[in-house]
Amino acid sequence: MTDELWLEDIHVGHRFRTDVYDLTVDDIIEFATKWDPQPFHLSDETAQDTFFHGLAGSGWHTAAITMRLLVTSGIALARGIIGAGGELAWPTATRPGDQLHVEGEVVDLHTSKSSPNRGLMTIAFDTLNQHSEVRQSSKVRVLAFAKPQ
Amino acid sequence: MTDELWLEDIHVGHRFRTDVYDLTVDDIIEFATKWDPQPFHLSDETAQDTFFHGLAGSGWHTAAITMRLLVTSGIALARGIIGAGGELAWPTATRPGDQLHVEGEVVDLHTSKSSPNRGLMTIAFDTLNQHSEVRQSSKVRVLAFAKPQ
Repeated sequence: MTDELWLEDIHVGHRFRTDVYDLTVDDIIEFATKWDPQPFHLSDETAQDTFFHGLAGSGWHTAAITMRLLVTSGIALARGIIGAGGELAWPTATRPGDQLHVEGEVVDLHTSKSSPNRGLMTIAFDTLNQHSEVRQSSKVRVLAFAKPQ
Repeated sequence: MTDELWLEDIHVGHRFRTDVYDLTVDDIIEFATKWDPQPFHLSDETAQDTFFHGLAGSGWHTAAITMRLLVTSGIALARGIIGAGGELAWPTATRPGDQLHVEGEVVDLHTSKSSPNRGLMTIAFDTLNQHSEVRQSSKVRVLAFAKPQ
């Protein structure tokens, strides 16, 4: 793959913006049926008398979509995007018809003291819909690898 | 559903343990193909020359499995498990053959000042395999609802 980023290529302030993912009713229901089978994620009818008052996507679905967008059009890290952990917040739930994209920035980066051929960076990113509503706000620690000599 | 927990029924220290989820090669590849299409998640062959040296599950797959276990056999909250956000760490990656379960505890709980019929609790939980290896460590803020009078 061209334009892959090695540790040396990355700097704090590096920004990215992904393509768009169109969220459908079927996609929400399919994901939830397998991973988060609760009434508000399974049909518009069963979601009416719930906190969401209508079909809403699982937060973990938003997280999965976010990862897909990062991998396919977000930040092309050499040796892949390997997360160690992080923080998530879901200020609002996704809804059918959401056109989601991710905007983010490298906010921290340092080389490992024990493994100088490796670093750890922190990426902060939001997953937004077409109305700029934030559906997920994330800060994740990700590995970075030094270019082999 | 019986035995659903309302805000009044929950206390800090409430513990739970879920059933087991058997992780297979096919499941790892199916999830990753859709949500995290990177070589180390897509086949044992393409994973050999990577950080993982063999097929490893996506961390977001671990998160999705964890949510499924919580919903189906973890903690039966009245009106559902609705997360506001939280923290995750993946100290090790899942591998095919992992038999995963979740163990957790309510570590914080308070009633909302603006909406006294609602509360926010924090649940801390680990997702472990059959060898007690921690695959995911989580702390998530979840809504709790007071019993209607």
